[in-house]
Amino acid sequence: MRLRVAVLGATGLVGQRFVSLLARHPWFELVALVASGRSAGQRFRDAVRWVIEQPLPDDVADIKVEPLDVNVISSYEPDILFSALPSELYEVEVELARRGYVVVSNSSPMRLEADIPLLNPEVNADHVDVVEVQRALRGWRGFIAKVPNCTTAILTLSLKPIHDEFGVRRVIVSTMQAISGAGLTGLPAMMIQDNIIPYIEGEEEKVERETLKILGEPTSKGVKWNDKILVTASCHRLPVLEGHMEAVFVETERKPDLEEVVRAMEEFKGNRIRGLGLPTAPAKPIIVRREADRPQTRLDRMEGGGMSVVVGRIREDKVLGGIKYIVLGHNTIRGAAGTGVLIGELLARRGLAPL
Amino acid sequence: MRLRVAVLGATGLVGQRFVSLLARHPWFELVALVASGRSAGQRFRDAVRWVIEQPLPDDVADIKVEPLDVNVISSYEPDILFSALPSELYEVEVELARRGYVVVSNSSPMRLEADIPLLNPEVNADHVDVVEVQRALRGWRGFIAKVPNCTTAILTLSLKPIHDEFGVRRVIVSTMQAISGAGLTGLPAMMIQDNIIPYIEGEEEKVERETLKILGEPTSKGVKWNDKILVTASCHRLPVLEGHMEAVFVETERKPDLEEVVRAMEEFKGNRIRGLGLPTAPAKPIIVRREADRPQTRLDRMEGGGMSVVVGRIREDKVLGGIKYIVLGHNTIRGAAGTGVLIGELLARRGLAPL
Amino acid sequence: MRLRVAVLGATGLVGQRFVSLLARHPWFELVALVASGRSAGQRFRDAVRWVIEQPLPDDVADIKVEPLDVNVISSYEPDILFSALPSELYEVEVELARRGYVVVSNSSPMRLEADIPLLNPEVNADHVDVVEVQRALRGWRGFIAKVPNCTTAILTLSLKPIHDEFGVRRVIVSTMQAISGAGLTGLPAMMIQDNIIPYIEGEEEKVERETLKILGEPTSKGVKWNDKILVTASCHRLPVLEGHMEAVFVETERKPDLEEVVRAMEEFKGNRIRGLGLPTAPAKPIIVRREADRPQTRLDRMEGGGMSVVVGRIREDKVLGGIKYIVLGHNTIRGAAGTGVLIGELLARRGLAPL
Amino acid sequence: MRLRVAVLGATGLVGQRFVSLLARHPWFELVALVASGRSAGQRFRDAVRWVIEQPLPDDVADIKVEPLDVNVISSYEPDILFSALPSELYEVEVELARRGYVVVSNSSPMRLEADIPLLNPEVNADHVDVVEVQRALRGWRGFIAKVPNCTTAILTLSLKPIHDEFGVRRVIVSTMQAISGAGLTGLPAMMIQDNIIPYIEGEEEKVERETLKILGEPTSKGVKWNDKILVTASCHRLPVLEGHMEAVFVETERKPDLEEVVRAMEEFKGNRIRGLGLPTAPAKPIIVRREADRPQTRLDRMEGGGMSVVVGRIREDKVLGGIKYIVLGHNTIRGAAGTGVLIGELLARRGLAPL
Repeated sequence: MRLRVAVLGATGLVGQRFVSLLARHPWFELVALVASGRSAGQRFRDAVRWVIEQPLPDDVADIKVEPLDVNVISSYEPDILFSALPSELYEVEVELARRGYVVVSNSSPMRLEADIPLLNPEVNADHVDVVEVQRALRGWRGFIAKVPNCTTAILTLSLKPIHDEFGVRRVIVSTMQAISGAGLTGLPAMMIQDNIIPYIEGEEEKVERETLKILGEPTSKGVKWNDKILVTASCHRLPVLEGHMEAVFVETERKPDLEEVVRAMEEFKGNRIRGLGLPTAPAKPIIVRREADRPQTRLDRMEGGGMSVVVGRIREDKVLGGIKYIVLGHNTIRGAAGTGVLIGELLARRGLAPL
Repeated sequence: MRLRVAVLGATGLVGQRFVSLLARHPWFELVALVASGRSAGQRFRDAVRWVIEQPLPDDVADIKVEPLDVNVISSYEPDILFSALPSELYEVEVELARRGYVVVSNSSPMRLEADIPLLNPEVNADHVDVVEVQRALRGWRGFIAKVPNCTTAILTLSLKPIHDEFGVRRVIVSTMQAISGAGLTGLPAMMIQDNIIPYIEGEEEKVERETLKILGEPTSKGVKWNDKILVTASCHRLPVLEGHMEAVFVETERKPDLEEVVRAMEEFKGNRIRGLGLPTAPAKPIIVRREADRPQTRLDRMEGGGMSVVVGRIREDKVLGGIKYIVLGHNTIRGAAGTGVLIGELLARRGLAPL
Repeated sequence: MRLRVAVLGATGLVGQRFVSLLARHPWFELVALVASGRSAGQRFRDAVRWVIEQPLPDDVADIKVEPLDVNVISSYEPDILFSALPSELYEVEVELARRGYVVVSNSSPMRLEADIPLLNPEVNADHVDVVEVQRALRGWRGFIAKVPNCTTAILTLSLKPIHDEFGVRRVIVSTMQAISGAGLTGLPAMMIQDNIIPYIEGEEEKVERETLKILGEPTSKGVKWNDKILVTASCHRLPVLEGHMEAVFVETERKPDLEEVVRAMEEFKGNRIRGLGLPTAPAKPIIVRREADRPQTRLDRMEGGGMSVVVGRIREDKVLGGIKYIVLGHNTIRGAAGTGVLIGELLARRGLAPL
Repeated sequence: MRLRVAVLGATGLVGQRFVSLLARHPWFELVALVASGRSAGQRFRDAVRWVIEQPLPDDVADIKVEPLDVNVISSYEPDILFSALPSELYEVEVELARRGYVVVSNSSPMRLEADIPLLNPEVNADHVDVVEVQRALRGWRGFIAKVPNCTTAILTLSLKPIHDEFGVRRVIVSTMQAISGAGLTGLPAMMIQDNIIPYIEGEEEKVERETLKILGEPTSKGVKWNDKILVTASCHRLPVLEGHMEAVFVETERKPDLEEVVRAMEEFKGNRIRGLGLPTAPAKPIIVRREADRPQTRLDRMEGGGMSVVVGRIREDKVLGGIKYIVLGHNTIRGAAGTGVLIGELLARRGLAPL
């Protein structure tokens, strides 16, 4: 028996990724597509400017888009709601959680609140337990689970095995982020053609804070942030379509041996979800390339169906006392909708959806 | 009276920049264009695939290209030779220096040798004095002065006022480098379209070492490297035409005040060459932008005729104990031919050319 | 004595080009910058996202932007108004013409009306006479002169000498147009990166019709369209910043000799404005390249300061009975603001401004 | 039982596409990978710079690359040889045909010879019969079948149903071709970034001639060209990765009704191979899009696995007396390796391979 799922904000770029991943999902059945504004009432095929490389499946294309109305959404009796709504509409997600729905949300508001799990499943699936704190504290019948910021999801997945083996102290990260991160229409072509914009609003703060929460510990009062790690970020937008690349410098507690680092990363199976058989979990969460010039954005972003991160150029860093490396991940799959679906699968497996 | 100058390797990308900058130079007269291979014997207009935005001046276009032969070059009696030859031909530069010529060279061999000045004039014009060490030591009648690596030239110009005011300790730099850095034909379009290549052979080592030499001190035995500074770099190629952008994290000795940093940078006049009236020296070596989203590669790379670096996003960095910022420079002007011409002007003013 | 000029819609892309061309103009003094919406009241430097390669001059940057209000505009007593307003605001241009102002307008409404001169000065400066028809017919104290569609301006300039010498019959044109043609924010990066969009709303109709009017004749009742020429167009947007390239196939009345065609184009001096000494008129309106692979968009778009068109690959076309060739022009200079300024200069020289 | 196949020139871009399509082929077993130069002796994974979006299958990656030696190739006893060798090595293909091998060749030499079938299977599978003319005439034990030029393959597939229904007379075609058409390293990034090059050596002649041969008739003496059709082409390279778009203007014998044209294209099933069950034949050789702005290169090039062409913007053209439309096809799949594999399948089904 399959769970009934809906996508909120289905016509945007992350929404399209959700639709694409859910259209043929073994556990989930897409029962509703919701969008704000004028899309409501149109068939999805007419409402969306589909830019995903896989064609839009015909059966999904014919679904009528529903308006962003909690009563309408409720009428579909969805087991899980995947939300790609913009930040300013987060109150809708809150209202749905209050009414008893399970909401997996990609937006940034409330990500840092202690009782809201911020989940990168291979890294911190155990944080899911704080939903009970959330429900008790807020008196909600349902709950909200959050997808991390795209850059942070990719970074923390690569940091986890290093942290487990060598103890991460300071992280300096500089990013090279794709235009898809700005959404379907967020970035005018005249602004980015033959150009780099060394600023993405709020992004550095998200990376610096969310990393500490994701690498923190769940407690009976919510998630306690990791207080041994320090992160500083510089974030940049440049003209590639999809895929965030990050140059990472890490100071470690224990002096790392490069072969040990490679092994730790390659053997990392995402213990937190190992053996759960989640369909969207990639066989190898981290793929390590040994060539001098990999990963490359266009060539490697779709590894593991876009759910693996690809690490390369692992070098000793004597200046910091640690290592430096490159990590690449698909920002709208691993960094958004793919991790959202994986969270949904985790919730289902853990018996948290349907409630 | 104008000095007679020649360009070696004139048909390549840096060679074209040299030609473009020297074609209308107030002090220098372009008397010879030299190229290896089949170009020799053709008129420059036929030998070159001119890709510079300014049209090739007619009088220069008609110059006959000479072969890479020291006797032929000598016959022009040049006062300064600007060399954009590839690294593997550096012996030609050595032979010309031995015979008594002043060679300003853009290639990487010998950049790190103590008696070869590695000049970023606003930063270390005083290093020019080591040419006498060089001539004595090697028994050469002429000498070689080196242009730094492109990324390093841009980085060190931005670091100099910070170092003077606050004391630079550790530098972590991550670069976003233009395709022009790979030369006219060095990088196939299929490799870089919609892509990032996180590796440039030898580049990181150049940045890490040359910075210490440039920020070092001239002595009677040659240049003594700065031994208080540590640099670690991660270098990346991406699809912009011209302009290297660098995300710089700096640990400083003295805690910096952001307004002081801005002031130090804006007031930096390149004391080492101040008042010398060098024609290619920009009025402001460092331009500081206060907007959240500047500098941008396409919009700012031509500041100061491509000779200024543009700094922005100066932020406190509590993780490192210092600052982080963005610096952008034009890699084939400030990072290559432009600095080469500026070195030539410095040599002329200092009485070192003609010898 | 200089004429007082204002730019309407100064913050958009064509508006910025107008400002850039007028900021240092020998005949014109920029007295007012006008913009709709929230820009009014701000200094121009704060209101505009300046993307022109030349820096914004300081004196212009400090001008306070005025709101789009005819009374406010009137208070500046401008001799010529250069308008880059969007089409839906064309009533403002009409109102200003009615009140006695000379309006040079880049927008498309009314371009095809017989009493409105549609001017590509080198081609049809004599059409300017119909402004008297316009004023009489409409009872306006001022008048409107129109800049042609960008693609059409470039096409007709290249067709004029062929038409004069060989008689143009049928024209088949296929375009490769830059993203700047969609305005500063008109085209999202996700839509055009690694992509071609084979459709630009209304563009083909504009090329097919405006060409006939521009190559027509002024009469006492207005412009009579050329009824011997037929034009069919296919228009496409692709990822280059600036410069429209057009592949043109022409059936001619008289069989063309290729050398004659080259000569006719190279010798074309834009007879209609020859000898008037208009500052923005390029020395050579048409530059012919003989290399197999020119013109190229990035390398040739700035010829003649962006006011020349560059023609290449002139070949016999036996299928059509005529020739085929490539023409390239700068779409926001030759195709918009540059031609607008040239029209202003023509009006001034002809005594039509100030009225 | 599967046929044994080999790829010649396996490391290039078209070679990689062949490998990718043959690696999991239901009828063919990849037994040898051949490359010229230094690749021989290495494992394929080390010899190739794999740039195809699908990962290189492990079993293929481990194949040892063989040198371009007819004896070595013979030792594998291949049933079909797929050749992506450069034109200058076509003598190797001739020698292999002489010795009794079936060669499907993508290179341009000999494409126009009457006894060499130039096959776009849905259009002219019946031309395959001329291989018997070829063997008789040349005394070869094997034979060569040719893949058309990429642009021509895409064009002729779109023209075929129009020709069948309305009679094609004159064709004017202007192309927008991807950088992949220049091969893996054929085009330097500095030449095409933010640029259009309106020239591809030999391309226009290929389109103009090969179209007439493909739309011709097989006779007992070889293929007789269609002498009622005239084609003129203008070919241009621009910065998209994959996918050739063509703006086509067609003069037809019978006045076309647009709905009839759409129907003819949509119903076109490639009669020549209908019912043969060839695995690489797309369900719909031509997909017609009705939206104003489709096809688009990035969004539509992979339709039918890259084997369908996508047609859009079918409009009446009164100037020519016919229609104009846009056609898009994947140049290295439909325009090269994919059509090559389809030819191989046709030969197998027709009993021509193995001989």
